[in-house]
Amino acid sequence: MKKGRLEAFSDGVIAILITIMVLELKIPHEADVGALQDLAPVFITYVLSFVIVGIYWNNHHHMLQATDRINGKILWANLHLLFWLSLFPFFTGWMGENDFASLPTAAYGGVLLAAAVAYYLLQRTIVTEQGPDSPFAAALGRDVKGKISPVIYAVAIPLAFVNRWIALGLYVVVALMWLVPDRRLESKIERV
Amino acid sequence: MKKGRLEAFSDGVIAILITIMVLELKIPHEADVGALQDLAPVFITYVLSFVIVGIYWNNHHHMLQATDRINGKILWANLHLLFWLSLFPFFTGWMGENDFASLPTAAYGGVLLAAAVAYYLLQRTIVTEQGPDSPFAAALGRDVKGKISPVIYAVAIPLAFVNRWIALGLYVVVALMWLVPDRRLESKIERV
Amino acid sequence: MKKGRLEAFSDGVIAILITIMVLELKIPHEADVGALQDLAPVFITYVLSFVIVGIYWNNHHHMLQATDRINGKILWANLHLLFWLSLFPFFTGWMGENDFASLPTAAYGGVLLAAAVAYYLLQRTIVTEQGPDSPFAAALGRDVKGKISPVIYAVAIPLAFVNRWIALGLYVVVALMWLVPDRRLESKIERV
Amino acid sequence: MKKGRLEAFSDGVIAILITIMVLELKIPHEADVGALQDLAPVFITYVLSFVIVGIYWNNHHHMLQATDRINGKILWANLHLLFWLSLFPFFTGWMGENDFASLPTAAYGGVLLAAAVAYYLLQRTIVTEQGPDSPFAAALGRDVKGKISPVIYAVAIPLAFVNRWIALGLYVVVALMWLVPDRRLESKIERV
Repeated sequence: MKKGRLEAFSDGVIAILITIMVLELKIPHEADVGALQDLAPVFITYVLSFVIVGIYWNNHHHMLQATDRINGKILWANLHLLFWLSLFPFFTGWMGENDFASLPTAAYGGVLLAAAVAYYLLQRTIVTEQGPDSPFAAALGRDVKGKISPVIYAVAIPLAFVNRWIALGLYVVVALMWLVPDRRLESKIERV
Repeated sequence: MKKGRLEAFSDGVIAILITIMVLELKIPHEADVGALQDLAPVFITYVLSFVIVGIYWNNHHHMLQATDRINGKILWANLHLLFWLSLFPFFTGWMGENDFASLPTAAYGGVLLAAAVAYYLLQRTIVTEQGPDSPFAAALGRDVKGKISPVIYAVAIPLAFVNRWIALGLYVVVALMWLVPDRRLESKIERV
Repeated sequence: MKKGRLEAFSDGVIAILITIMVLELKIPHEADVGALQDLAPVFITYVLSFVIVGIYWNNHHHMLQATDRINGKILWANLHLLFWLSLFPFFTGWMGENDFASLPTAAYGGVLLAAAVAYYLLQRTIVTEQGPDSPFAAALGRDVKGKISPVIYAVAIPLAFVNRWIALGLYVVVALMWLVPDRRLESKIERV
Repeated sequence: MKKGRLEAFSDGVIAILITIMVLELKIPHEADVGALQDLAPVFITYVLSFVIVGIYWNNHHHMLQATDRINGKILWANLHLLFWLSLFPFFTGWMGENDFASLPTAAYGGVLLAAAVAYYLLQRTIVTEQGPDSPFAAALGRDVKGKISPVIYAVAIPLAFVNRWIALGLYVVVALMWLVPDRRLESKIERV
């Protein structure tokens, strides 16, 4: 099975999710600075979610670049990832509109955790299809970032009820960890 | 005629439908657990419709993978299928927001039935174009699932007025029937 | 310049327009038959606009299938067409929610007319690029449908103020005229 | 790394942004001419933003046409551009619904400026990847338009508080500057 449509469909869903999130920035009826200030928390959560979805798209791009064949299991593992990503606009909006209250902030972490686990499962499904000795498996290596991210999320979620800023800070830490270019991996994948 | 744009357009419409359905999960103004509990029926219907649309996308992918040429009739049979799929967000939301009341649950089954019939018609149109002796027709075989699904929906719709949970259970049964991998068919199509 | 992205971008915009139109079917709070009946005019306009947009997508598909090269002028002529198509959801909704009142029905015809003219201009721009002796120009022939359609729309618009059902009937006539397969043209384009 | 998915993803996001902007044209409950007149400022801003987004899509198309390879930096520079474009619907709506009040008009210019800078940065990132002696860098030349546009926006923003029509006029001037075909550049890029 060819991977073209899997990529195109994922691109479509991710592109729509990014733009649906921006709809949470409700246009204010006032034309003054205060109207924009009220939107600050919603805007901050939008930026955070935009970056996280951007990281997923980037990684998804790299991963499928190094994948030759796909099968029915990979299609469903991919749909499973898209399902959790599709809940980002809801939980981003819930956290933003409630000024980072504890429960929505923890729930946001829950969706981040579920998406990270779904991404890991998709990766494992592809490794199984490609074989443990494939260039893909070699390029993936120990996948330290992929394994640490869900652990940090799992730690952050209960901390949201202690101090929500700690939880939010940890979500940002994971995003920054992925934003810093990982030249070693990229060059390996390119060699694939 | 090449099939690339037919695939791309269908991917676009299906990707948007999946993400429009999530908009029915209206962001609550409260930040407590009760707010999430109120959303439970809408969330359950979202999961069900996400899985069903995912099955359609998967099957559509397999079907066109095994198709060489398309013509004007196939384009319109495909648009006919997309029309019924485009009504999923409306009927999913109507059923979810009315806590699975009888009429919306029956109507949801009606749209499932119409989409199943439209899918069957699209398949027949492709078989006619490819010829009854084509590898596509051979791989399709007796198409038991494709013929049983609309029958189950047709039985479930009136049952929604007797007991809506029976109807809903039958919709879930059809989804599970398709989710279980059908290795025989997949391997046959791959050989095409 | 390659035509791939022009097709992909047009597919994206048209796919989104079709699905945005369905958002005008506002989910009712009641779970009875009356709630659906109230939606009947909005539903009818949705079906009409879905079919018309489907015809545009189909024709666009055929037209670009027969086009080799594109240039900056074609890109803008295409964006011009997409602009008018992008107003379909607004005018479809306005007509449907006002039960086919005269002014919205005339305005709907106005957008149909503008889109038909934009399509004609796009076609002319492509003919100019491909040359009057190109297979594309030959396949297009006298383009009777393409020339009659805007004339019928122009006649229907003022008639909306006399009797809106006449105007609406004429819009349907144009749609049916395009839906009837035009084998002669299709086979000619296929030979291109 | 191949550029196909970068193009497809950007096409998806831009196609959705264009169609999301049209959602700001809220369907009026009245069926008279006054209802349309009230929408005039929102409609004018829609047309302006549609044209500007169309220009970005056109230029993005040309730029990537002349690009061979992409890397992680280009992916992120592109996401950075898409981020600012994703704020167009919000600021377009804010300006339109407040009848071009000073602050929203200045803020709209701010987003135009940010997008212009992001586009410039994306271009520089590609030049760095392709090399200063590449055909891409040669075709780009001195890039007068690309450098003047942000300067005009930066001048227009404070002027919005003096006279908003001057600011708006300057935004239109930049758009017209790009709409006028730049044959020299196009032919150079085509030769690439």
